Amino acid sequence: MSEDAPAAGAARPGGRTARTRAAVLDAVLGELEDAGYGGLTMERVAERSGVHLATLYRRWRNAEGLVADLLAEVGTREVPIPDTGSLEGDLRALAAGIAGLYARPRYRALVEGMVAAAVRSPAAAAALSEVFAGRNRLAGAIVERAAERGEVPPGTDAAAVSAAVGAPFYYRLLIQRGPVDGALAATAAAAACAAARSGVFAPPADQAP
Amino acid sequence: MSEDAPAAGAARPGGRTARTRAAVLDAVLGELEDAGYGGLTMERVAERSGVHLATLYRRWRNAEGLVADLLAEVGTREVPIPDTGSLEGDLRALAAGIAGLYARPRYRALVEGMVAAAVRSPAAAAALSEVFAGRNRLAGAIVERAAERGEVPPGTDAAAVSAAVGAPFYYRLLIQRGPVDGALAATAAAAACAAARSGVFAPPADQAP
Repeated sequence: MSEDAPAAGAARPGGRTARTRAAVLDAVLGELEDAGYGGLTMERVAERSGVHLATLYRRWRNAEGLVADLLAEVGTREVPIPDTGSLEGDLRALAAGIAGLYARPRYRALVEGMVAAAVRSPAAAAALSEVFAGRNRLAGAIVERAAERGEVPPGTDAAAVSAAVGAPFYYRLLIQRGPVDGALAATAAAAACAAARSGVFAPPADQAP
Repeated sequence: MSEDAPAAGAARPGGRTARTRAAVLDAVLGELEDAGYGGLTMERVAERSGVHLATLYRRWRNAEGLVADLLAEVGTREVPIPDTGSLEGDLRALAAGIAGLYARPRYRALVEGMVAAAVRSPAAAAALSEVFAGRNRLAGAIVERAAERGEVPPGTDAAAVSAAVGAPFYYRLLIQRGPVDGALAATAAAAACAAARSGVFAPPADQAP
């Protein structure tokens, strides 16, 4: 995403910028549901949202930028970063949030469409990886708090722990092509927690900070 | 895949059936590299391999069946199921094999193409999930041996451990869109090993067999 693309956390309820973004992302989701990924164009989103085409190009650059911002917005809204007081509690809550998101067919279709687009389009690939890097940075706060509490070794790679929680969901969705459910969420959280505690995501002891 | 589709381990070097399969799968890989996923047809594979179209339809059913059999054959050939004497050694060797496979652009493109096809095509989705279910069943032998040695709790879900080793690779390939390397392999193996040892993939103690 470009520097002036709206950051996931930048929306201010009630602001004009936030209302524009909400209208545009609603239109993107509607277009994806009506026409699918292949039918999404800047022109159609402009028409559906009532936002000027020039504004769309300036703020989102291209269709991939629109879908990436939608994915980031959905993640922020539907899967908040928990703070329960323990690593296990936080990772369980995070995994339950991801499971709840992908139990809904519209969001499953959204991420599947973006993954398929990324295989063909470098712009889609860059936008997709950027969205998930942002999510893993945000969720890394869980691990930083766990390190302060002494639950994981110093120097634990916070984004890697977040990625470890997410990976089983995308394997289930994209490779196994099966349903995501509470059992998957519980296993994903517990596996990432056990690995993080045992130092898998920390540097070797002689390189610890 | 249909019942009479060739199983991944069914090839006998030197047999006529094995030679036919090798010629067909070579042709599939060549077609994928020349024309991409969208250009793959039974007719082109018949022409390129010199195998009768009727034989292709009988043994592989459709283009998805061809690609799935290629994926299974590549997995069997390039990522053998290790038996090093320890769970950690086996999972490290398995992960290193997966990393070596996807360090090669042709195999990365193969799995990416199949994942993208599975988003659009239920036949491709079924074939893809079948291939990976087969791989996870085979790799489950690693966990069964570990259970016999007392390295993991009784009742540990062997296929789930194998899936846990694989998941980080597909997250890296498909979501993060980054390179697979030895560091990813080491982390994937160590995380799955720590989780399996700590009982994440075993039933609760009061339900153990």
